[in-house]
Amino acid sequence: MTNKDARTPASSQDEQPIQGEKSQEAGKSIGWHKAYVEGSRPDLRVPVRQVHLTNGQSVTLYDTSGPYTDPLIATDVRRGLAPLRENWIIARGDTEEYAGRPARPEDDGIKHTSPRGGLRNLDAVFPGRPRQPRRSRDGKAVTQLAYARRGEITPEMEYVAIRENVSPEVVREEIEAGRAVLPANVNHPEIEPMIIGKRFLVKVNANIGNSAVTSSIEEEVEKMTWATRWGADTVMDLSTGRNIHTTREWVLRNSPVPIGTVPLYQALEKVDGRAEELTWEIYKDTVIEQAEQGVDYMTVHAGVRLPYVPLTANRKTGIVSRGGSIMAAWCLAHHKESFLYENFEELCEILAAYDVTYSLGDGLRPGSIADANDEAQFAELRTLGELNRIAKRFNVQTMIEGPGHVPMHKIKENIDLQQEICDEAPFYTLGPLTTDVAPAYDHITSGIGAAMIAWWGTAMLCYVTPKEHLGLPNRDDVKTGVITYKIAAHAADLAKGHPGAQEWDDALSDARFEFRWEDQFNLALDPDTAREFHDETLPAEPAKTAHFCSMCGPKFCSMKISQDIRREHGGSRAEIEQGMAEKSKEFAAAGNRVYLPITD
Amino acid sequence: MTNKDARTPASSQDEQPIQGEKSQEAGKSIGWHKAYVEGSRPDLRVPVRQVHLTNGQSVTLYDTSGPYTDPLIATDVRRGLAPLRENWIIARGDTEEYAGRPARPEDDGIKHTSPRGGLRNLDAVFPGRPRQPRRSRDGKAVTQLAYARRGEITPEMEYVAIRENVSPEVVREEIEAGRAVLPANVNHPEIEPMIIGKRFLVKVNANIGNSAVTSSIEEEVEKMTWATRWGADTVMDLSTGRNIHTTREWVLRNSPVPIGTVPLYQALEKVDGRAEELTWEIYKDTVIEQAEQGVDYMTVHAGVRLPYVPLTANRKTGIVSRGGSIMAAWCLAHHKESFLYENFEELCEILAAYDVTYSLGDGLRPGSIADANDEAQFAELRTLGELNRIAKRFNVQTMIEGPGHVPMHKIKENIDLQQEICDEAPFYTLGPLTTDVAPAYDHITSGIGAAMIAWWGTAMLCYVTPKEHLGLPNRDDVKTGVITYKIAAHAADLAKGHPGAQEWDDALSDARFEFRWEDQFNLALDPDTAREFHDETLPAEPAKTAHFCSMCGPKFCSMKISQDIRREHGGSRAEIEQGMAEKSKEFAAAGNRVYLPITD
Repeated sequence: MTNKDARTPASSQDEQPIQGEKSQEAGKSIGWHKAYVEGSRPDLRVPVRQVHLTNGQSVTLYDTSGPYTDPLIATDVRRGLAPLRENWIIARGDTEEYAGRPARPEDDGIKHTSPRGGLRNLDAVFPGRPRQPRRSRDGKAVTQLAYARRGEITPEMEYVAIRENVSPEVVREEIEAGRAVLPANVNHPEIEPMIIGKRFLVKVNANIGNSAVTSSIEEEVEKMTWATRWGADTVMDLSTGRNIHTTREWVLRNSPVPIGTVPLYQALEKVDGRAEELTWEIYKDTVIEQAEQGVDYMTVHAGVRLPYVPLTANRKTGIVSRGGSIMAAWCLAHHKESFLYENFEELCEILAAYDVTYSLGDGLRPGSIADANDEAQFAELRTLGELNRIAKRFNVQTMIEGPGHVPMHKIKENIDLQQEICDEAPFYTLGPLTTDVAPAYDHITSGIGAAMIAWWGTAMLCYVTPKEHLGLPNRDDVKTGVITYKIAAHAADLAKGHPGAQEWDDALSDARFEFRWEDQFNLALDPDTAREFHDETLPAEPAKTAHFCSMCGPKFCSMKISQDIRREHGGSRAEIEQGMAEKSKEFAAAGNRVYLPITD
Repeated sequence: MTNKDARTPASSQDEQPIQGEKSQEAGKSIGWHKAYVEGSRPDLRVPVRQVHLTNGQSVTLYDTSGPYTDPLIATDVRRGLAPLRENWIIARGDTEEYAGRPARPEDDGIKHTSPRGGLRNLDAVFPGRPRQPRRSRDGKAVTQLAYARRGEITPEMEYVAIRENVSPEVVREEIEAGRAVLPANVNHPEIEPMIIGKRFLVKVNANIGNSAVTSSIEEEVEKMTWATRWGADTVMDLSTGRNIHTTREWVLRNSPVPIGTVPLYQALEKVDGRAEELTWEIYKDTVIEQAEQGVDYMTVHAGVRLPYVPLTANRKTGIVSRGGSIMAAWCLAHHKESFLYENFEELCEILAAYDVTYSLGDGLRPGSIADANDEAQFAELRTLGELNRIAKRFNVQTMIEGPGHVPMHKIKENIDLQQEICDEAPFYTLGPLTTDVAPAYDHITSGIGAAMIAWWGTAMLCYVTPKEHLGLPNRDDVKTGVITYKIAAHAADLAKGHPGAQEWDDALSDARFEFRWEDQFNLALDPDTAREFHDETLPAEPAKTAHFCSMCGPKFCSMKISQDIRREHGGSRAEIEQGMAEKSKEFAAAGNRVYLPITD
C-alpha cells in the first residue's frame, strides 16, 4: 500500500506531490517543500516546512507531518515508518531486547467476538518488520530525565533544540528541572522527537480512537496521519472498542509523533466493562503490554482517591472524565483506596524501564461551568503534585492534565495553582471550555480558553473537535480541531513572545499588504481552505494577482489606497516616511492649526 | 412576499413553525416558543425565547430574532415590520415630519447604470407604507441621552431594562453617564430597543452589505434576518455597490435590530470612488439621506487626522480600515485637515436631530500583529476621546470603535486606555484577531480576542466571518460568524458575573448530565447543528433518550457511572452526599490510611 493508497494527507499540494527543490529548478512555483536541518551527525536531520514566496524569500515553519509529506521517502503503512531513533537507543547500551509479554486474545477483546466477528479489515498482527520489545538493562535509568540529570545531551535533545531554535543545553536544563518532558518510549523509535514545556512552542494533542459504537483501524491510522498533517504534535489513541491492541500497533508503527493512551480503557475492556472487576494485576499487565508496543505517554488517574469521590456529589455534572469515573466506581464498589494510588511506586518502576512519560490525569476535572475550580478538582490537583514528586524520584518524566470547563475569570487560578503545586511540571489541558451553551462549537468555546491558558503557561493543549459532547469526530472534525488549536497555540506563542513566532505573522501580513495571494495561501495554517474561500468569490486566475479583492472591489481597497499613499510619497518605506514627515512638518510649520476648538 | 418566500430563517423549527403555547396543549413537544414579557403599558412587550424542557421546567433566553420567529405575526418584506416605537416617538411631541431631502439618482449610483443596468431585483422604491422622515422640532433635544440627562425613563429604556433584567433606573443612569448607548433613530420605529454598555449583556454586531463585485438586495435583507435569527444584536449595512440607497431602505424597514452604516462609503460612490473629490457637502448630504431613512448609528472616521497619516508609513500593513484609508487619501491629496474633524460640531447637530448614535471609527486600527498598539493607533484614540466629549455636549450618544489585529498580551491595554481616554464610553471592537496566520479561520483567531476584550469591558463585538481577508461572507459564513461571537459574548458575560448568565449554562449542563438530549439541543446556541452532529453517529430516535452517547458507548459512559454512583448511594443529591460522606467518615475512622508513603 503506497502513501497515496493509505489516503494520507490529501491537499492540492499532495495531489501534485512536492518534488523537492529539484522541481523548482524546472521553474514551477511549488509553494513549499519539505526540507531538513542537519544537526551534529548525519542521522540527525530535523524536518521543516520551507515556504517559498513569490518575492524570492522563504519562511521556515515547524513541521509535524512526518515522512508522509516528503516525496523522496516511500512510505508504506503495512511496513511502518523507518526507526529513526533506533541507532541512538542501541548506542546508549542501556536497554536490551527481550521476549516480551505473550500476546493474549483478550488484548484485542477477542473473547467478545461475535458470530460475524474476527478482525475487521487489516491483518490481526501488524505485518511490518519483526521486532522484539526493549527495556532498561540491569536497572539502568533510561529516561530522558535521567540523562538530563546526568548532564547528558541526547540526540533527542539536540533534535528538539534544532526544532525549537534554542540551544541543546536549554533543552537539557528544562528536562532536568522537570519543567519539560520529551516523550520517547524506547519501543517507539519511529518518532521525530519533540518537547513539551512552557519554555518551548505550545504543543497540540489530537485524540483519535475507535469506540464500541463505530470506526475502524484504517480510519484511526488515517486520522493520525491526517492530524499530524495539520499540525498535531502528539496523538492520543483512546480506542475502546474491539481490535484495541492491533489498532494501537498500526498507529504506533506509522506515527511520526509521540502516542499517548489511557491504559485504564483497555484494562476495563478486559473485564467486560465492569469497573469493580478491575485489579492492579490486570492494569499493570495492560501498562506493560502498551509500553512494549511503544506508547510514549500514559494518562494515569491515580489522583482520584476514595475520600475525594463524595466531594463530587453536589456537582452539577458529577465526574465527567471516563478514567475518573471508572476509578471512582472502583473505589466505591470496594470501599478501598485507588489501586493506582496504592501501587504508584511500582507503576513508576515500570514506566521508567521504557521511558514512558506520565500524564497524570485529572479524573475529577469539572464538566460544567458550575463545577469549575471546586474542592474536588483542587483536592485531586494536590495529590497530583505529590505523585509528580514520586515520579521524579524514579526518573519518570511527568506532565499534569488540566480541565475541562472553566469560565474565563477562573482560568488563571488553574495554571497558577498547577505550577505551584506541581513544581512547574508541564500542564496539559483540555480546552478549557469557557461556556457550556454551544455544543457543535466546542472547538471554539474551548479554543478561547486554550489560547488564554497557554499564554499563561500551559505547555500542551488537548484539542476539542466540533463533535465534543455529541459524537465521534470524523476526518473534517479532526482537521477543524487541530487547526483551531494550532491557532490557540500560536496566539499563545505570540503573547509569550516566543522567539521567532511573529516572523510567521509578519511574512503573511507582508504578503497580504502586497497582494501576494499565493504567498498568503501558502503561509496560511490551512492553505487549501484559504484558497478555496478566495476563489469562491473571485475564481479567475488573474484575481490571484489582482491588487484588490472581493471584499471592497477595485475602487475601495484600503490596502491599495495605503500603497498609493506610499507610492505618491516615495518609493521605499524610508523614503515614504521622509516624504510624509516633510508634509507633516509643513503642516506643523503652518501652525498645526486645530480647526475645531477642543473643550472638555 | 411572505416570510417564507423571503427565505428568512430556515431551521427545523421554522419548517415546522412554532405555534405558541396552544400547540403545546395538543401534546406535541415543540422545544421553544416566542413569548413576551409585558412592561408598564400594553404596547411594551419584550420578546423572549422560552425553551421548554422535557422535565417540565423552562428557560428564558434573550431574543434578537424579531417578529419573524413569531408564528402569530404575519410578516411581509414588501411592507416592512410594524412600527413598534411610532406611538412612543409621536407621544413625546418633540419631533415633526417634514418633506425630507429629495431623492437623487446618484443615491443609488444610477449615473453608473450600465446598458444592461437598472435596478436588479426589487422595486427601486420600497413599496411599503408611505412615510415621511422625522426630525427634532425647534431644536428640541430628542436623543435618549438627552432624556436620560433630564431624568426621563423612556419606553425604550424600560424595554431594555426588561430585556437585561435590571431596573429602568440603571438603564437611565448608564445612558446619562455615557457608559451605554441605546441606538434608536426616530426614523427607525421598527426596532426592538437594545442597549450597548459594559454594565449590560455583551452585544454582537453582524456586517452585511453588497459590494461592487457581487450580491443583491434580497441577499442582504435575507442576511440581516438570518443574522438576527442567530443572535446578532445590531447589523451594519456596509454596501458599496449599486442600489445602495434602496438596499438600505429594504434592510431598515425589515430590521428588528438597530442598523449601522459608514456614510463615507456611499459618499465615495457618489464621487465615483475618487477620494480626493469628496467634500463636506457631499458627506453631509449623505448623512442626512441616511438619517432620514432611519440609520441608528454611523461610523465616522473623524479621528484620522492629517498629522497621524505619516505615523502609518512604517507599518507592516499601513491603513487597513476602508474609511481610514479614504480619509487619509483625502487629507494627503489636499494636504488639509480632515473635513470630518473640521466639521464635527455641525455633524453632531445633524445626528442629534434624529438621535443617530456615533460610532467613532478607528480608521488607523492595526491590520497586523506587528502594528498593534502603535503610535498611529493611540494618537487616533486620543482624538476619539476629544470627539466623544464634543458629541456629548450635543447630546449625541457615542461609542468608540476598536481594533483589529492585536496579540493577546496587548489586548488589555486597548480597553483600559479606551475606557480612560473616552470616559468609559462603550467600546465596540472588531475582534481583535490574535494572530495573522489563519485566513479562513479568522472568526476563531478573533473570537479568542473578542472574548477576552469583552470580559475586560468591551460592550459590543463586531463579528468576523471565516471569509475575512478572503471574500464576501455567504449565508453559512454569516451564521458561523454570529454563533462564534455569541460564544465570545456569553463567555464574557459569565466571566463578568452578569446576573443570570450562568443559568443558561446550568440548564444545559443539567440536561447533559441527565441525558436529556432534546433539551440539550433546544438550549444550544445552534440547536440544528447540535442535533445534526449527534445524529451523524447515532441517528436512531431511541438514541435521543439513550443514557449514553456515541463517544463512549453504553459501557464506558462517565456520566452514567456518575449517576450510578449517586443512585447506589442515595436518591436525592442531599442523600447521596450524606451517604458518601458516611462512607468517607468510615474511611477516616479507619485511620484514613495512606497506603503510599508520600515524601518530597
